[in-house]
Amino acid sequence: MKEQTAQVRWERRAQRPLLALAVLFAVAYAVPIVVSPASRSLTNACTAVEWLVWGAFAADYLVRLVLTEDRVRFVRTHWLDLCAVALPLLQPLRLLRLVSTLLLVQRRARMASQIRLTTYVAGAVVGLLMFGSLAVLSVERESADGNIRTLGDAVWWSFTTMTTVGYGDHAPTTGLGRVIAVGLMLSGIALLGVVTANIAAWFIARFEKDDVEERRQTEAILLLTDEVRALRAEVAALQETSVQR
Amino acid sequence: MKEQTAQVRWERRAQRPLLALAVLFAVAYAVPIVVSPASRSLTNACTAVEWLVWGAFAADYLVRLVLTEDRVRFVRTHWLDLCAVALPLLQPLRLLRLVSTLLLVQRRARMASQIRLTTYVAGAVVGLLMFGSLAVLSVERESADGNIRTLGDAVWWSFTTMTTVGYGDHAPTTGLGRVIAVGLMLSGIALLGVVTANIAAWFIARFEKDDVEERRQTEAILLLTDEVRALRAEVAALQETSVQR
Amino acid sequence: MKEQTAQVRWERRAQRPLLALAVLFAVAYAVPIVVSPASRSLTNACTAVEWLVWGAFAADYLVRLVLTEDRVRFVRTHWLDLCAVALPLLQPLRLLRLVSTLLLVQRRARMASQIRLTTYVAGAVVGLLMFGSLAVLSVERESADGNIRTLGDAVWWSFTTMTTVGYGDHAPTTGLGRVIAVGLMLSGIALLGVVTANIAAWFIARFEKDDVEERRQTEAILLLTDEVRALRAEVAALQETSVQR
Amino acid sequence: MKEQTAQVRWERRAQRPLLALAVLFAVAYAVPIVVSPASRSLTNACTAVEWLVWGAFAADYLVRLVLTEDRVRFVRTHWLDLCAVALPLLQPLRLLRLVSTLLLVQRRARMASQIRLTTYVAGAVVGLLMFGSLAVLSVERESADGNIRTLGDAVWWSFTTMTTVGYGDHAPTTGLGRVIAVGLMLSGIALLGVVTANIAAWFIARFEKDDVEERRQTEAILLLTDEVRALRAEVAALQETSVQR
Repeated sequence: MKEQTAQVRWERRAQRPLLALAVLFAVAYAVPIVVSPASRSLTNACTAVEWLVWGAFAADYLVRLVLTEDRVRFVRTHWLDLCAVALPLLQPLRLLRLVSTLLLVQRRARMASQIRLTTYVAGAVVGLLMFGSLAVLSVERESADGNIRTLGDAVWWSFTTMTTVGYGDHAPTTGLGRVIAVGLMLSGIALLGVVTANIAAWFIARFEKDDVEERRQTEAILLLTDEVRALRAEVAALQETSVQR
Repeated sequence: MKEQTAQVRWERRAQRPLLALAVLFAVAYAVPIVVSPASRSLTNACTAVEWLVWGAFAADYLVRLVLTEDRVRFVRTHWLDLCAVALPLLQPLRLLRLVSTLLLVQRRARMASQIRLTTYVAGAVVGLLMFGSLAVLSVERESADGNIRTLGDAVWWSFTTMTTVGYGDHAPTTGLGRVIAVGLMLSGIALLGVVTANIAAWFIARFEKDDVEERRQTEAILLLTDEVRALRAEVAALQETSVQR
Repeated sequence: MKEQTAQVRWERRAQRPLLALAVLFAVAYAVPIVVSPASRSLTNACTAVEWLVWGAFAADYLVRLVLTEDRVRFVRTHWLDLCAVALPLLQPLRLLRLVSTLLLVQRRARMASQIRLTTYVAGAVVGLLMFGSLAVLSVERESADGNIRTLGDAVWWSFTTMTTVGYGDHAPTTGLGRVIAVGLMLSGIALLGVVTANIAAWFIARFEKDDVEERRQTEAILLLTDEVRALRAEVAALQETSVQR
Repeated sequence: MKEQTAQVRWERRAQRPLLALAVLFAVAYAVPIVVSPASRSLTNACTAVEWLVWGAFAADYLVRLVLTEDRVRFVRTHWLDLCAVALPLLQPLRLLRLVSTLLLVQRRARMASQIRLTTYVAGAVVGLLMFGSLAVLSVERESADGNIRTLGDAVWWSFTTMTTVGYGDHAPTTGLGRVIAVGLMLSGIALLGVVTANIAAWFIARFEKDDVEERRQTEAILLLTDEVRALRAEVAALQETSVQR
């Protein structure tokens, strides 16, 4: 049980620094896209920061693997983390680095049990909107007949996609841009599901009516208990009579 | 407990006049947008009415703050009201005045406990559609390449947005117009959630089947009660026998 | 109670003929729109059939009003029927006649208790799609810059609207066409809600887990009953002993 | 009961070969559409494979019909299978062959009880997306003013349709293409419903609060049982006293 505790202790301590690194990654990812004709040195610095943050999360995975009790089970239940760690090594593309870091951050965020579901969903939606916008912008700006060319357009497009409104005034035209769009659409459907389910659960808990039968049962049981108590009193009286004679 | 009562009494009395002022605000907001080349004096009068209504709601907030028991708690639980009161002072823009007044009206409406949820949701949807249309119209009409130029187009666009249909025959092109659109989209998702949840709650209450087990329980309890009553009768008979001898 | 029975008997007997008349109305409404350069005599015949069907439903309302027990209550609970009957008299427009007849048919269909909810919803959706297509086609074909000009386009547009997909390749441009579109959108949201709620109710009934606690209760009650029975046997034995001595 | 077992045994054994044939059908259906200027021999080979797979499923239906106990009931409960078997014989169109084979595969997949609902839904969605894309591509590429001309466009269009986003940058223009689109839209609504319902069921199971009343009942029953046990002890004591004297 000692190793287990060591793992949990590490996970708690590493949480805040890793969250700070995630924010740093967001900045490093956004800067070369927003500052459009970015100088070479700035781009290089941002790439370095991205690799650094990815490295920190990879190191976190390894430390947890070393500290865990049952390593085989850890690898099996955390195979997605392993993929996310390995992905940028196989194909050092910027977008894959984004996806793998987002996956690692998300996996880490889910571990923080004090974060409630609503906060988690809201955070995931905001993150997806932000990174979806940036990723589509960086991909579509290169395309000759693309129509998403400013950050404003990209954010606007993300919103219309995620809420499944889909005006069509802006839409990705490249294959990669469309893959990102599909991700946003599926997240939008999940978002809709979570919002609806949340409201429905609240509604159902409020209008629940099957308490009537249960309250009648409770009353019946209490009545029965009174009956039995009266019976005990009678038996006690009988006992008294019996003894007296 | 006396202060508490004073606050509640004030809130009840102020409710109707404030609702009337909210309707007045709606008219004052709509007139300069619908009457397109509005005369300077008309615009000024409408602006004065808007400030007046905002002032009345701000005064209502202050009166409630004075009458409440625990002021620190009141400020903390009503921080959104405070923001809504302060907003137009910091940036005296027309749209901010709209948002802050809508927020204050909505906060006040939620206090009226006799309003049922469905009425509240329906009211919120109609209000959002109306003010969303007007706000987008006033913003987009100024834009050179805007395509929402008449009140009819604006209302039509609001409906296609809120129901997440999104034809794209009309869509906002300015930043501010898109911010309003995002508000409508999110309201649309919430609306969808409320409608679905409402129907689902009704369905579930109707098809609920776990009454079977409960009815069997009630029968078992009643049977048991009969059993105990028979027992009491026997004990009473025993008592009789015992006494007779 | 005799009048009540007379009303119910009438409602049962009139149901089938009225349904047949509703189908006739559908044909009479569709023909002058689909057969585009319709001859004057055909149009007149169809208008006559429409008035006839509306008249039959109005007569049905009056017969039920005469046969009912409490007429004031009947008028109050059936105010929508009264509006639907009165509407074409005030404004003899074709679209109003459609709306009022659809309302009357729907009100009548809801009375047939043997129709299950799913059938009712499916019927309402198909009806709305069909009449929405026809109504939009008849309205938009007149417009100079309309883009819904064939029955195929109108049906296609109805589907994209009701499922909230909204491609925007076809969209109404006239005010009246947009009012019909809003009706279809709202029905689409309701349809989505019903489908989701139906699936959710089925899911929840399937994964319901609170039977565990109830089964433990039933067991506890049965155990208690055994206990009481044993007690009765003991008391009976005591009685025997008491009597023997 | 022997025939019943024979049928079940056949269904289990035939499952894997039929699944492999379904994959083969998918390949044979996709090849002549994706390899656009397909050679005559390739097209013929693919058509042969399609007929072969359909034939295998038709044979499976016949074998099950022979092995079943009550043939009349089998035909009545499997009328959709019969239609799917008969359809390509009446109209040997490629699209009808696709629809009928998909129906037969789906009917077979539902029989495999070890497949869980989520897997089934996910499989159905992926299958619909894939075949919807291919079918629309093959239909729209022929049309003069069609705008879905590459496999990439077709897949992208399928996603925007099924998630009800509907940008409108690509949309079917032929009647047949629109029929396929309506199928995808309806599936999309069902998908949304399943996702929402799944999340809602999970939410409701989590936030369920009506255990409170039930736990109080259980406690009441246990208290009552103690009471009755005490009573039995007293009666036993009474018995003792009675006998001693």
